[in-house]
Amino acid sequence: MPLPRVRIDLERLKSLLEGVNRFGFAPRTGGYNRPGFSREDTDCRSWFAARMREEGLTVWTDGALNVFGRFGPEDGPCIMAGSHLDTVVNGGAYDGSLGACVALECVLAMKDAGIEPATAVEIAATSEEEGRFGGMLGSQAITGQVTREWIARAVDAEGNRLSEVLETHDLDAGTVLAAARRPGSIAAFLELHIEQGPILEQEQVPIGIADRVSGICYLELDFKGTANHSGTTPMNLRADAFAGLADVAHSIPHLIEAHGTDQSRITIGHVALTPNQPHTIPGRAVFSVIIRDTSEEVMRILCKNMTLNAEATAKKHKLELTATERSWISPALLDPHVADLLEVVAARHGLPARRMPSGAGHDAQTMQAFCPSGLIFVPSRGGISHAPEEHSNWQDIEKGANLMLQALIELCRAKPD
Amino acid sequence: MPLPRVRIDLERLKSLLEGVNRFGFAPRTGGYNRPGFSREDTDCRSWFAARMREEGLTVWTDGALNVFGRFGPEDGPCIMAGSHLDTVVNGGAYDGSLGACVALECVLAMKDAGIEPATAVEIAATSEEEGRFGGMLGSQAITGQVTREWIARAVDAEGNRLSEVLETHDLDAGTVLAAARRPGSIAAFLELHIEQGPILEQEQVPIGIADRVSGICYLELDFKGTANHSGTTPMNLRADAFAGLADVAHSIPHLIEAHGTDQSRITIGHVALTPNQPHTIPGRAVFSVIIRDTSEEVMRILCKNMTLNAEATAKKHKLELTATERSWISPALLDPHVADLLEVVAARHGLPARRMPSGAGHDAQTMQAFCPSGLIFVPSRGGISHAPEEHSNWQDIEKGANLMLQALIELCRAKPD
Repeated sequence: MPLPRVRIDLERLKSLLEGVNRFGFAPRTGGYNRPGFSREDTDCRSWFAARMREEGLTVWTDGALNVFGRFGPEDGPCIMAGSHLDTVVNGGAYDGSLGACVALECVLAMKDAGIEPATAVEIAATSEEEGRFGGMLGSQAITGQVTREWIARAVDAEGNRLSEVLETHDLDAGTVLAAARRPGSIAAFLELHIEQGPILEQEQVPIGIADRVSGICYLELDFKGTANHSGTTPMNLRADAFAGLADVAHSIPHLIEAHGTDQSRITIGHVALTPNQPHTIPGRAVFSVIIRDTSEEVMRILCKNMTLNAEATAKKHKLELTATERSWISPALLDPHVADLLEVVAARHGLPARRMPSGAGHDAQTMQAFCPSGLIFVPSRGGISHAPEEHSNWQDIEKGANLMLQALIELCRAKPD
Repeated sequence: MPLPRVRIDLERLKSLLEGVNRFGFAPRTGGYNRPGFSREDTDCRSWFAARMREEGLTVWTDGALNVFGRFGPEDGPCIMAGSHLDTVVNGGAYDGSLGACVALECVLAMKDAGIEPATAVEIAATSEEEGRFGGMLGSQAITGQVTREWIARAVDAEGNRLSEVLETHDLDAGTVLAAARRPGSIAAFLELHIEQGPILEQEQVPIGIADRVSGICYLELDFKGTANHSGTTPMNLRADAFAGLADVAHSIPHLIEAHGTDQSRITIGHVALTPNQPHTIPGRAVFSVIIRDTSEEVMRILCKNMTLNAEATAKKHKLELTATERSWISPALLDPHVADLLEVVAARHGLPARRMPSGAGHDAQTMQAFCPSGLIFVPSRGGISHAPEEHSNWQDIEKGANLMLQALIELCRAKPD
């Protein structure tokens, strides 16, 4: 089994990840808080940019807060590699940041080996992937998929407007739109990410090659009823917004049974009650419904039936319903040639890998609409992610990172040293 | 129909209520925020005490933040009248504060009429009735029903400890226990309160005389599951704390159908999810379940079955359940002789009134364990309370307040002027 001659430096990769994770660490929970455009997120980006500058790369930040570092020829298209630096609230140490660090480490390993790429390699640390405003904002900006109208409308779960958040960073819709790359300027995109699911661990395979990705619909439902005294209001005279929410949530398993697939996931993760006081019947319940499937058709049917359920529930509980589709990310097939290349390179270098779908959304699927894109997974312990317990073994990470390195070398048509 | 010779001054009563409601008004919602022991609550108490002092009453605050004003003989037992000054969050303008103001207005009307009571009348503005720490803390302190152990344990829905909140007001368990009145020192207690339900309005009767009050059980349920990625975690491998909560909430109508009465009320009013993010499966759900009935036996059965439901749900969703009975207030019969007296006085003065149960808990039921107690209701528009829309007509209030006045004159054995 031939070992790759150029290899990543695992200790350096570890220290890069430690560097990123100095930002937003919450000692009380052990989790990380770098929501998109938060202070912790932007501080982390500045650090990552400075780290790349130290290595002599050409470094810049675009108008959507994506950070880039370029290695190789100044002109012409690039091979882009990377992932996002933002986290969910109380997220883990690996989600996104590992992929950005692996991309940088691959470039450093090529530099150390004296490899001069014929096609430039660009490291990308993308912004707002996790969904504070719907997700994949950075990669959507790069690929020209963001519209002025969407930016004007976008609001996070706490009611902060994207346009106002951008302003605090001296950005606006114009700078986000200007972040779009010219067609043909990115020859290919590669992302390494943790699997965030249980499959690779269960099958004891260190590398996954994703060939399709679930889409994500973010549906926000808002029930308005009547806040009232919990003692004097008979049960049959209530307009209890939380009772409506509970009925909708209770119907989810049946909804999937009737209309979904084994790839369907429906999650109510965010709930805001008003006034949220023990002795008062909730007068309002605003909550998120995240619907995912690998089939767009199935997503449409689930979304439609979820809304119909909510309408029927509103009628039953004397509530007023507002349903808003806050964002829609279509399921994606990733590039089959890139997936084939990854499989061939893995086999050539003795790195065990399997093809699989991805239940989570990733920047790679957004990039696929713009250029051939590939996605490498490494196993997640217990399938746990978006939580402080998120963990991946360094042995597996090393294998995945070396696959990324060899694929990048192949793609940038570098002459071996 | 003989009119009462001594009458309350409606304009003065209005201005007293306006005075109280200068504290905690929220212009955005039109509601009032004076949760027990909040800054707004204590500022309001200081104002109420100062207002009573202006009128030449003997005024003091006890170690549980109850405010008293005494009129008549310095020594001997008193007839006590009043209600609470605290509100729920975003509550209405009448709940509690109207009763405290009516008690003060009755004393002022007696003073104006030159009435010298043989037995002193004490106005009471009680503290923390609304349930921030379980409710009726003020009247429980007056009647010696609070224990050191309970104070040490009591926590509000945001996790603030009562003992620490007391400390910020230079109070502690010792001062609360020292607020207990000597047995026999209160000859009777009268409270006027808004009905907070729809019955008087529906029947077009301006005055209710409550003869029994529902009890209140505050059950806190805490589901612990696993926070995880909403895309990669298959539905059948989740430990979704919110899905557990939704199932418990969904079962409430059936629970009442099977084990409750037409007086049963079960409310989930407060919900706290962790991390409460759209794209993460909730790892924890802590929520309040308020169970009320006029029968203690029925309350016990509902509470028991709610806990059994939650245990079964925890098992089904792979959650860990912690169930805590945060407070238990027994249903109460109010004093039949006081209710009879109120009925006779109402009839004598041409004030239409009807006897009825109370679905809400009130200080009068706590006082009943200590001295004969009575409770006068005035209608609530649309039955709405604990909300900015809470409203009662001044014509009805005037009738209720005059009943309170005449009953107080009767009870304090005053010689007519």
